[in-house]
Amino acid sequence: MPQGKAVIGQSGGPTAVINKSLVGFIKEATKSDFDEILGARHGLAGMLSEDFVDLSNLSEAQLYGMGKTPAAALGSVRKKPTDSDIEQLVSIFEKQNIRNFFYIGGNDSAETANLVSEGAKSIGYDMKAFHIPKTIDNDLLETDHCPGYGSAARFVAHAFQGDDADNRSLKGIKINVLMGRHAGWLTAASTLGKSTEEDGPHLVYVPEKVFKIDEFLKEVKEVYDSLGRCVVAVSEGIHNEEGEYFLQTYASETGSGLAGKKDSHGNIQLSGSGALGDTLTNIVSEHIDGVRVRADTFGYLQRSFLADVSEVDAEEAERVGQHAVVASKEMQSGSVILKRQLSETYSCDVDVVELKKVAKHTKDMPQEFLDESKPYVTNEFFEYAMPLTGGIEPKTQIFV
Amino acid sequence: MPQGKAVIGQSGGPTAVINKSLVGFIKEATKSDFDEILGARHGLAGMLSEDFVDLSNLSEAQLYGMGKTPAAALGSVRKKPTDSDIEQLVSIFEKQNIRNFFYIGGNDSAETANLVSEGAKSIGYDMKAFHIPKTIDNDLLETDHCPGYGSAARFVAHAFQGDDADNRSLKGIKINVLMGRHAGWLTAASTLGKSTEEDGPHLVYVPEKVFKIDEFLKEVKEVYDSLGRCVVAVSEGIHNEEGEYFLQTYASETGSGLAGKKDSHGNIQLSGSGALGDTLTNIVSEHIDGVRVRADTFGYLQRSFLADVSEVDAEEAERVGQHAVVASKEMQSGSVILKRQLSETYSCDVDVVELKKVAKHTKDMPQEFLDESKPYVTNEFFEYAMPLTGGIEPKTQIFV
Repeated sequence: MPQGKAVIGQSGGPTAVINKSLVGFIKEATKSDFDEILGARHGLAGMLSEDFVDLSNLSEAQLYGMGKTPAAALGSVRKKPTDSDIEQLVSIFEKQNIRNFFYIGGNDSAETANLVSEGAKSIGYDMKAFHIPKTIDNDLLETDHCPGYGSAARFVAHAFQGDDADNRSLKGIKINVLMGRHAGWLTAASTLGKSTEEDGPHLVYVPEKVFKIDEFLKEVKEVYDSLGRCVVAVSEGIHNEEGEYFLQTYASETGSGLAGKKDSHGNIQLSGSGALGDTLTNIVSEHIDGVRVRADTFGYLQRSFLADVSEVDAEEAERVGQHAVVASKEMQSGSVILKRQLSETYSCDVDVVELKKVAKHTKDMPQEFLDESKPYVTNEFFEYAMPLTGGIEPKTQIFV
Repeated sequence: MPQGKAVIGQSGGPTAVINKSLVGFIKEATKSDFDEILGARHGLAGMLSEDFVDLSNLSEAQLYGMGKTPAAALGSVRKKPTDSDIEQLVSIFEKQNIRNFFYIGGNDSAETANLVSEGAKSIGYDMKAFHIPKTIDNDLLETDHCPGYGSAARFVAHAFQGDDADNRSLKGIKINVLMGRHAGWLTAASTLGKSTEEDGPHLVYVPEKVFKIDEFLKEVKEVYDSLGRCVVAVSEGIHNEEGEYFLQTYASETGSGLAGKKDSHGNIQLSGSGALGDTLTNIVSEHIDGVRVRADTFGYLQRSFLADVSEVDAEEAERVGQHAVVASKEMQSGSVILKRQLSETYSCDVDVVELKKVAKHTKDMPQEFLDESKPYVTNEFFEYAMPLTGGIEPKTQIFV
């Protein structure tokens, strides 16, 4: 098969280490014999408009700087390709002699790689297509975990350690809203910095369980009555039995002005807004008299904070990018995954699975990671997640 | 004068390094000849209820752990003492033979120390009273800057570096709301991680200037039209010419449901809520068609994030705590300040001024730190603030 050019793009919400995957890819690709190494600006959008940048001649210093920078160095995009997009894309690839497609992203990106692969096959154009995983949501199938999650989890764990100390200092009820529409992985990470039962967060609400406001209020009040304070972690995606977001149903039931805004796709906007935190704050304030209630929505800091990256996550992110190139020499297509090794100390190998196995679907937290009796996580989750963060030092010498 | 016991308390909003001041105090106090070293839980509240903890026998490991922990290890309080509180306090001090009062906090704490000093004098009780400065708001008079600010500024600068990279990746308008009711010091720190003109934040709105929504919209649109994106830093305390908070006036003028909540003192609640960010987001969305607009409110993370502390700030915080004890051997009362030295490399000495000079009032950013022609800061601000953060490495190897 002719070698041809390689193209890489980044897609979806950025992470703190997504550029590490790009660096890993570039380093391996420059050692390889691709005719050219192209980066597409803003993922699919740049590929369709042939907006490419040459990645062949970056200096070590440039690669180092890029690897230290969060968010997508090539720009990102939120775009699911239509049939005609794929047709156009393959024809551009053919015209440019691009025979190696790499896409860094979540399950939608795996699906895009799959569509590119099938599209090329259908017109008899010989090309390779690989998906490189990333997402702070940690919700991809097949892989043990997703590059990007470890750093986001580290940020969240550290943020809760500090915020819990703050809550001890001035008391009251503190609600922190975390990213995660469908899965509670990042919200669960709020527990990783706890040293004792009395440390916050005391309650953890994830989308894997149905959210009931009455139970929430009862549980918050119980902790508050017992400790004189309460720190709560809430996923932005909490929902009712029908799967409707709390913010949506609460707003329509109450006509509350705090209702969530809809984005351009008509989806309720959960991130980049404090609406859920403020709504919960108002409800708790009405329910528990005279208590100081505050909410913070951690927002984009979770995925972009550059000063507290997990070294384990950074290393793995680079490795999956590198491995995509290695795999492309041996097979036609695939999604790179991380496989945890059975040993005393934590380690992961890289491997490749079929694109279809990763495309489209998402992975919730398994039942064994969630406490059955209360809104909280289990030790099994702790053991799973802690190594990914690079380790969270226990804290706090506090007298109150 | 009889030596007697010493008591220390912490007051107001915690910081990432307020416990460093406590550690500095304890280390010096244990070398001293106080009869006993007491910590008051929750500041004035604990002193009035005689809720003390013995600080004389902490191990090096305990002091180290405490110094690494953000927020008030003794607990904090928001309380301005009444005349009868002061009377009661002095009588407790007399009963317990407490002759050395130390209070870590902002301008209210300096005032409390002053009232304690005067109250003791008025009944002829011989005691010392010292204020140890802290506040992320950086708004105390006399001192070059306030312990706590450097770390908060570092967090904010790093957060904007990451968030700016994120905004480059997915474009749109991003509004970040920062702490600061009366002064824009922390909001101004958002600029400290910028490498080029094109980096965000592009616009910085501080309470030192009157906020006009029409000008804001015009300025945001100009940047967006020119760069295809815009990152904005906004102080929570932006206000109109009458000094009324924007959130307050906008809500009453428009009847908007996003109006800020009032706290137990009837003040509009600015922190622990996303109301200002969401309100501005809605206004910008209505004004500029089809653009992606998001807001984050950095909230308590600014003052409590333990994984990104300024070493300079931490060292100075410890030094002001220590110096309060040293000063108490030489004079009757005072507020510890930091004095910047004139030299090539940054350094600060410690000194003491009269409590009255620090009490009650706050310090806005001086005119020379604010750009006259646009909502932005000057190089003079940069030179002032950068050393306090411990240094912010320039970033970003980005292609879009």
